[in-house]
Amino acid sequence: MSWKRELERILVNARPAAANAGQWSSDFKKKLLVDIAARIEKKTAWLIAENRKDLVIAKTRGLSSSMIDRLTLDATRVQAMAKGLRAVARLKDPIGRVQAKWKRPNGLRIQKITVPLGIILMIYESRPNVTVECAALCLKSSNIAILRGGREAMASNRAFVSIFKESLKHFWLSPFFVNLVTTTDYKAVDFLLRQEGRIDLVIPRGGEKLIRRVVEKSRIPVIKHYQGICHVYVDKKADLKKAVAITLNAKLQRPGVCNATETLLVHRDIVSKFLPMVAQPLRQGGCEVRGDEMTCRYIPWAKRAKASDYGFEFLDKILAVRVVRDLEEAIRHIETYGSHHTDAIVTEEKKAAEIFKSKVDSSSVMVNASTRFSDGFEYGFGAEIGISTDKIHARGPMGLEGLTSYKYIVEGNGHIRV
Amino acid sequence: MSWKRELERILVNARPAAANAGQWSSDFKKKLLVDIAARIEKKTAWLIAENRKDLVIAKTRGLSSSMIDRLTLDATRVQAMAKGLRAVARLKDPIGRVQAKWKRPNGLRIQKITVPLGIILMIYESRPNVTVECAALCLKSSNIAILRGGREAMASNRAFVSIFKESLKHFWLSPFFVNLVTTTDYKAVDFLLRQEGRIDLVIPRGGEKLIRRVVEKSRIPVIKHYQGICHVYVDKKADLKKAVAITLNAKLQRPGVCNATETLLVHRDIVSKFLPMVAQPLRQGGCEVRGDEMTCRYIPWAKRAKASDYGFEFLDKILAVRVVRDLEEAIRHIETYGSHHTDAIVTEEKKAAEIFKSKVDSSSVMVNASTRFSDGFEYGFGAEIGISTDKIHARGPMGLEGLTSYKYIVEGNGHIRV
Repeated sequence: MSWKRELERILVNARPAAANAGQWSSDFKKKLLVDIAARIEKKTAWLIAENRKDLVIAKTRGLSSSMIDRLTLDATRVQAMAKGLRAVARLKDPIGRVQAKWKRPNGLRIQKITVPLGIILMIYESRPNVTVECAALCLKSSNIAILRGGREAMASNRAFVSIFKESLKHFWLSPFFVNLVTTTDYKAVDFLLRQEGRIDLVIPRGGEKLIRRVVEKSRIPVIKHYQGICHVYVDKKADLKKAVAITLNAKLQRPGVCNATETLLVHRDIVSKFLPMVAQPLRQGGCEVRGDEMTCRYIPWAKRAKASDYGFEFLDKILAVRVVRDLEEAIRHIETYGSHHTDAIVTEEKKAAEIFKSKVDSSSVMVNASTRFSDGFEYGFGAEIGISTDKIHARGPMGLEGLTSYKYIVEGNGHIRV
Repeated sequence: MSWKRELERILVNARPAAANAGQWSSDFKKKLLVDIAARIEKKTAWLIAENRKDLVIAKTRGLSSSMIDRLTLDATRVQAMAKGLRAVARLKDPIGRVQAKWKRPNGLRIQKITVPLGIILMIYESRPNVTVECAALCLKSSNIAILRGGREAMASNRAFVSIFKESLKHFWLSPFFVNLVTTTDYKAVDFLLRQEGRIDLVIPRGGEKLIRRVVEKSRIPVIKHYQGICHVYVDKKADLKKAVAITLNAKLQRPGVCNATETLLVHRDIVSKFLPMVAQPLRQGGCEVRGDEMTCRYIPWAKRAKASDYGFEFLDKILAVRVVRDLEEAIRHIETYGSHHTDAIVTEEKKAAEIFKSKVDSSSVMVNASTRFSDGFEYGFGAEIGISTDKIHARGPMGLEGLTSYKYIVEGNGHIRV
């Protein structure tokens, strides 16, 4: 039960740290993050050496080559992390912003001001850059991070967090502003998920299984993202050149990510023109097509789709294709099979776009743009904590604002309620 | 298991209803709510008769007189409910509002637009007016309500919901826009709390026990409010007349509600002047005082406070009093014993107010105003769903905005990601 002592120590010290962090000036936070970036750069060789320890174990455990690739650090990657830290340092401070202010008829002056959430538990898998990113975003938003990374990256995560703590010490601050859970016992995670009132928010990042487990166990609010089953719908009045470009980009630019498109819906009036146009470049891109009967008529090399291919997150160079009767059927398909993540229409007709924008209940609705744009950086947030498929608190790409709450400041002159 | 069939029927029909409600115009929602108000007025006698059925059972069950009072309807109360509906009808539509819009350097136009949450489960206790209020606020925000009221008010709740459904029918709409759970089996609640993905938000209203149970069982996000342990701190530079008025109002104007003050903190420099001033009117108001040693010296009739009196929600005419060394000790007391609901400082010194506003981590921080102002109506929201002591999604008094989410609309011209 030594992990319990470790976690208690973190939890007991995290709350006073949170109260302190809420008072940090924007300038100080900038200075702190720039200092951490410099320390990371200076210690590149050591970080790579620590990372090697993880890689040695990973290889003996037989991790897949893609997992090992994500785990591996080199000078370029460490450099990129330092650069990322400096970019976070430059972002606008999300704390202390007056979201609204007004005066009541009785003279009370009310302000709604952003404040930190407090203590945030991040649960994620192998990539060590997530450690640096999450810790940086929490510091920038004056939140305390409790980081529970994957066991595969433990040595790397320890190394990075030690650099954060080194910098905190340099500024005479408590080490508990950034915390790493160093036990790999899953009971420790379950214990943390029951610490309602001591932890303010849980953000799991990783596979669906991990996230479902967290949601099931947690008594603390969870912000999460299960699946990205994104659609591109090519309407009858689409500019077909745009439609081809968007389909290819949405499917093939990076098939393994959540905002990649999984299903293409095509209005039946343009099938005979559009499908042959898009088939060739899809094939050249190495993409498998699984289509309904009509699709297979126009793309002879396509496979017949099974019912389960619709609403499936391939995360691969596989595209499900279905021909629909009209816009309404496309919207119904998205409602039935989608995950409310990101869905796009390609059309030159304003009315169709209006209906699609209004009726499709997804966190991002695209008109004549690739689903791949659904991303905190592409939206100009300067950071991305994750993409929420919830509707509570934060929805869609979540920037620093997602790590804030607010409070009401009410100023009177001896006001009493009558 | 017949309740399961009833609930399945509601859940299956609620999602299409939600999609439909998202398309309602502001004008239509206004018309609908005004129509319901008129029907309630017209049926006052019948509503009172139905309410009598609840009262008969309540009396045989031996409910407390205050419970019975809260349950009882008369013409004035029904009239007030109709008036409340018309007030909600007049509120600004919270849906379809552009919260932000911007253009990216690549030409993409992005809008962030409010949308309904979808399907909201309300779990609450006896008062039938909560049924009308929650149903009205859900309709106004284009959300589907699933109402699970107390068994004590079942006949009344059935009557009110039937009037909502009558009006929906009048407008040729599905009855599933407003739903009442008519089973009192607690298993039905547990079943609903597991319907993640089919219900979007749970709002429990009632005693702490009810709320803790909901949080423990729910896999759906919950917005809640446990306790209101509110403080008034009288600083050394306070205007003592204001301090007396605020203390009396905060404690005695309505002691049974969550924004009533439970503990008074007094700076030691002004104890000898302030405590005698406030003691007399407190006593006249029938208020018991439980103070520390110093307090008892200046209020001879006060009882000695036990440690457990601090941080206790009396919800009654009882006030805990403690003398503090300085502002910092007051803030520490609030941090240790408070519930982050509402806390007030009385001071004429700007610096002390600044420190208090910044350091006190409560959803509402009052300066020279009674804690009783922490209320959706007093803040000008025109409605109150509840008061959240969470920091996620909504914090503090929660108006219609708390029943909305948003989506991003991204418009391009064939944009693809590079």
